[in-house]
Amino acid sequence: MLEKIHSPRDLDGMSYEQLDRLAGEIRNELITTVSANGGHLASNLGIVELTLALHRVFHMPEDRIIFDVGHQSYVHKMITGRYDRFSTLRSYGGIAGFPKRSESEYDCFETGHASTAISAALGIARARDYQHQKYEVIAVVGDGALTGGMCYEALNDAGNSGTKMIVVLNDNEMSIAPNVGALSNYLTNLRISAGWQSAKRKVRHLNRIPLIGKPVYRLIHGTKQLLRTVFVRDTELGFFEALGFAYFGPINGHDLAGMENAFRQAQMYKGPCVIQVLTKKGYGYDKAEERPEAFHGTPPFYIETGYRIDKPAKPSWGHIMADTLADLAEKDERVVAITAAMKLGTGLDHFAERFPDRIIDVGIAEEHAATMAAGLAAGGMRPYVAVYASFFQRCYDQMLHDVCMQHLPVTFLLDRSGIGGEDGQTHHGLFDLSITIPVPGLTVLAPCSSEELISMLKWTAGQNGPCVIRYPKSVKAIETDREYLPFRPGVWHALTDESDVILLAAGSMVSRAMDIHLKLASEGVRTTVVNCSSVKPPDEDYLSSVPRNAKVFTLEEHMINGGFGEYVTRVCKDRGWTVPVRCFGVGDTYIQHGDHEHLMRDAGLDAETVADAILRAVKGEEYVG
Amino acid sequence: MLEKIHSPRDLDGMSYEQLDRLAGEIRNELITTVSANGGHLASNLGIVELTLALHRVFHMPEDRIIFDVGHQSYVHKMITGRYDRFSTLRSYGGIAGFPKRSESEYDCFETGHASTAISAALGIARARDYQHQKYEVIAVVGDGALTGGMCYEALNDAGNSGTKMIVVLNDNEMSIAPNVGALSNYLTNLRISAGWQSAKRKVRHLNRIPLIGKPVYRLIHGTKQLLRTVFVRDTELGFFEALGFAYFGPINGHDLAGMENAFRQAQMYKGPCVIQVLTKKGYGYDKAEERPEAFHGTPPFYIETGYRIDKPAKPSWGHIMADTLADLAEKDERVVAITAAMKLGTGLDHFAERFPDRIIDVGIAEEHAATMAAGLAAGGMRPYVAVYASFFQRCYDQMLHDVCMQHLPVTFLLDRSGIGGEDGQTHHGLFDLSITIPVPGLTVLAPCSSEELISMLKWTAGQNGPCVIRYPKSVKAIETDREYLPFRPGVWHALTDESDVILLAAGSMVSRAMDIHLKLASEGVRTTVVNCSSVKPPDEDYLSSVPRNAKVFTLEEHMINGGFGEYVTRVCKDRGWTVPVRCFGVGDTYIQHGDHEHLMRDAGLDAETVADAILRAVKGEEYVG
Repeated sequence: MLEKIHSPRDLDGMSYEQLDRLAGEIRNELITTVSANGGHLASNLGIVELTLALHRVFHMPEDRIIFDVGHQSYVHKMITGRYDRFSTLRSYGGIAGFPKRSESEYDCFETGHASTAISAALGIARARDYQHQKYEVIAVVGDGALTGGMCYEALNDAGNSGTKMIVVLNDNEMSIAPNVGALSNYLTNLRISAGWQSAKRKVRHLNRIPLIGKPVYRLIHGTKQLLRTVFVRDTELGFFEALGFAYFGPINGHDLAGMENAFRQAQMYKGPCVIQVLTKKGYGYDKAEERPEAFHGTPPFYIETGYRIDKPAKPSWGHIMADTLADLAEKDERVVAITAAMKLGTGLDHFAERFPDRIIDVGIAEEHAATMAAGLAAGGMRPYVAVYASFFQRCYDQMLHDVCMQHLPVTFLLDRSGIGGEDGQTHHGLFDLSITIPVPGLTVLAPCSSEELISMLKWTAGQNGPCVIRYPKSVKAIETDREYLPFRPGVWHALTDESDVILLAAGSMVSRAMDIHLKLASEGVRTTVVNCSSVKPPDEDYLSSVPRNAKVFTLEEHMINGGFGEYVTRVCKDRGWTVPVRCFGVGDTYIQHGDHEHLMRDAGLDAETVADAILRAVKGEEYVG
Repeated sequence: MLEKIHSPRDLDGMSYEQLDRLAGEIRNELITTVSANGGHLASNLGIVELTLALHRVFHMPEDRIIFDVGHQSYVHKMITGRYDRFSTLRSYGGIAGFPKRSESEYDCFETGHASTAISAALGIARARDYQHQKYEVIAVVGDGALTGGMCYEALNDAGNSGTKMIVVLNDNEMSIAPNVGALSNYLTNLRISAGWQSAKRKVRHLNRIPLIGKPVYRLIHGTKQLLRTVFVRDTELGFFEALGFAYFGPINGHDLAGMENAFRQAQMYKGPCVIQVLTKKGYGYDKAEERPEAFHGTPPFYIETGYRIDKPAKPSWGHIMADTLADLAEKDERVVAITAAMKLGTGLDHFAERFPDRIIDVGIAEEHAATMAAGLAAGGMRPYVAVYASFFQRCYDQMLHDVCMQHLPVTFLLDRSGIGGEDGQTHHGLFDLSITIPVPGLTVLAPCSSEELISMLKWTAGQNGPCVIRYPKSVKAIETDREYLPFRPGVWHALTDESDVILLAAGSMVSRAMDIHLKLASEGVRTTVVNCSSVKPPDEDYLSSVPRNAKVFTLEEHMINGGFGEYVTRVCKDRGWTVPVRCFGVGDTYIQHGDHEHLMRDAGLDAETVADAILRAVKGEEYVG
């Protein structure tokens, strides 16, 4: 049946029996494709009926649907004309794992980072009202994303303006990880007080609810009474009501007819409303139901067993970080780890095993994580904040103002820096150097190997100021045959013999520079590869000693604009030292999704391309400076 | 009496009559100093009794108090040993207008940007608990700052963990501007339902409230009943309760004895609690009570009339922006203005007068403002987001992901870019170029004059992508004797005759470059001043035509790291064009508070210093490259 669904309108005439069969086919397709390509499985299995119900009641693309975070949009993609390409999911040149406006008119707003959908929906709804248009705007938000402050800012604004919009709270009681925060308990309480079965109770007289937008006391004392009669459950003056939203629910998220009924009623409601829909992560695939966290984002796996196809040969950078941090915590009672709903992803589960009381998971709330860490440091602790490099963007101001301006000893550990891969443009870590290098007093580090990461972490233990350490997801790193020296900032190490062709490489590019070194050697060009793991401060002794006739190149897995190479270039020029000939990095464009090596080639950062450019520059065949 | 207060402990033995007299003296001192130096008046007048009550009940610095935003810390400063220096408030070398750890041990955490205090307080409280210490942590947060999502993230985390801390909600019903958002209505409702007089009612049996931190349903079904008997007002299961906080109040914020009683009770409470204190902005000075917005942040004024001493001779950049935007809005129905509680500060009050329905003030919520703007643009509107450059840091990720990655036509208007002046390090706009230049597809502009700002705004009307325009607070700008040409990105204009000493100046530095040009001319050195108002894209035609022997200098009121000069330097080097000799800008350090010219001199950006450096470089006396 699935291959006959070319647009959501093909769902219109189907019976609930047919829809149940379709849901089964969708689940099969989800499991088959994700088991082969990797991706987000549990959340999509949980949202099958919800997506079908939304598309049957609302008329996309005239009506607009925005998926918060967006990793749960696979079902939406399958039934909006992309089923034939679904097997290319997340692969290079294939369809993306997140909504993409370039892919389909059904994707009206791109997401990737959490908690943006209500803001975007409110903007679209306001644009609709300004232009006197008539369509529905629906934001689908997971309960996990609701810990993000932006959701609250948006609810507060929308509730006040009374703009008609529908927030579907996809409540699976667990976002990436089990939910944290008091609000999560509050939602649980709503669930308990209403009972799962309440979804089937009738919603009556909803069209009699007056327009919202009047002062809230009117809503409270007027509408609330009405809601009480309309909904079976007593709607207390609770969280959503305080923010000016009508609250409907909870609804059983696997009961199509019940959801459709509720959505049709919500359609008639004239103000902003929240519908709490209860779904089960991983629904329909026992392995995912049992271990929803493991199947949140998963690499390729065997369907029968749920086991990963490729097991990593080595521990991840994250686990190495976490093990080292736990060693530090053993010696220093002040060490505390913080993350923002990324305990598994950052490897901090290893730390949590040894020090369950010294890890704080604040939920999806990077801003709070950074400032709370600053508070911990001001109170005498040594906080380490582990987040993905691209999510670190969320706490830029807090890192700058609350941590660095007070020169507090907070260390930020940026996992998944550089080009990320299949998750695509919202998940690459390509901007972190540009936002950290300009910050006075902040030490910026990029280890070339996990041994060096260990050495850096040990160094931070004795420091009294802020530090950022960026490292990639992949375990690929250079192998050094010597014992690792204690880390010292501002000291670079040459990894090969001296030459007047110098490759200044940062972080993940050191290993690649070694490949380039071998390639150029085979062409008769000797190069010095320098491990520039101390991005800031740079090694001024080394830079000042570079001969005038040397040809210097910088290499980084980061935007060229605002990156390591640009910084070193300006420093050298300011001091009258030999200025690099060319900076290799990601050009002034966004990088899409696909496997890492394909994307590196797109960025011109594969060993062949770089070696070739250097060769031409050295031979003077081409001005590459 | 005030001169005898060397520490808060000097308040201990005082009678309420004496304290009333002291409050009067404090108000006099506030009015006298701020009328001379400028500063934040209304909020400090409103918080006199609250500050005294906090310092009488709690024992700072052992107990920790954090002022959210921090501009309301003047009274705190006066009674914590800084009265003798209070007349130097906000002046160069004097005491700061915000908390500073370097000034006093009573300032335990620095603030400046809104909505951070609860996060910081939670961090400090956790540090206390980890170290088995005993002290109180108090966050004083205005109702306006409560619109910021960070507050909610922090409440959610603290409410869940049950960490003992006290949030004093300083509710003056109006933060910088009248409060927006549904929550503000909710707070009003709490006020109404309780009645102002409730503050005087007795709080009984509070020490019997059990430990919070158990599942919330326990709090709800157990503690809540208890709270009901304890507090006169029925505490409904409301906003704060949903987030796991006990709610106390409202309390009359000008009744010392009542507040002290409430704070003592809160001291005994074992979990996190919010105390709503009702204060009146500007209390005790009729001009400020009448126009609290005007006296939020005020320049020097005459005490008797409340009139400004120096009236600006010309309209501000902000008003010129707003008037132009209103002109655009007249022709284009898609134009809509957005701000985040900065309507007056950004000049958008002028726009609001002409188009009250086309301005959206989201309150202190920059993240939401940016993504909501992206939604508006995705829905077909043309949003202009006006914020201060330093607050723009708050929506970095949203600007990058939600606006720029989707290449949506949102224009960010960054007021107060460059060195700000008396508000000090948290309010300078010195990082905006470093976070915008690396963003693909984003046009980055810096007009040298208000005429050019007008010309740029008109240009944006025809664009389909994102844009950032930065301009300073000060009205100082170059005077051009020619009609302004329509703006074109990527085109720079030489303002003086040709020479091989070239000053590439951006934004506010163009006017200064003209001064430098005159100074150097008197020394016999001719210079070409180039207005580089199009920071990105730069003028590649111009740069490629610069002769090899030219000595090029860049000038910007921004960090050198990540700034315009660094960017141009790398571009020139990549293309093989003449590379600038030196980048003038702010070095790798934070700039303090004081008058703009003093701070520019500290940064080495006064005309004399720059002219002198260029002269030496041109004469070859010194290597400055």
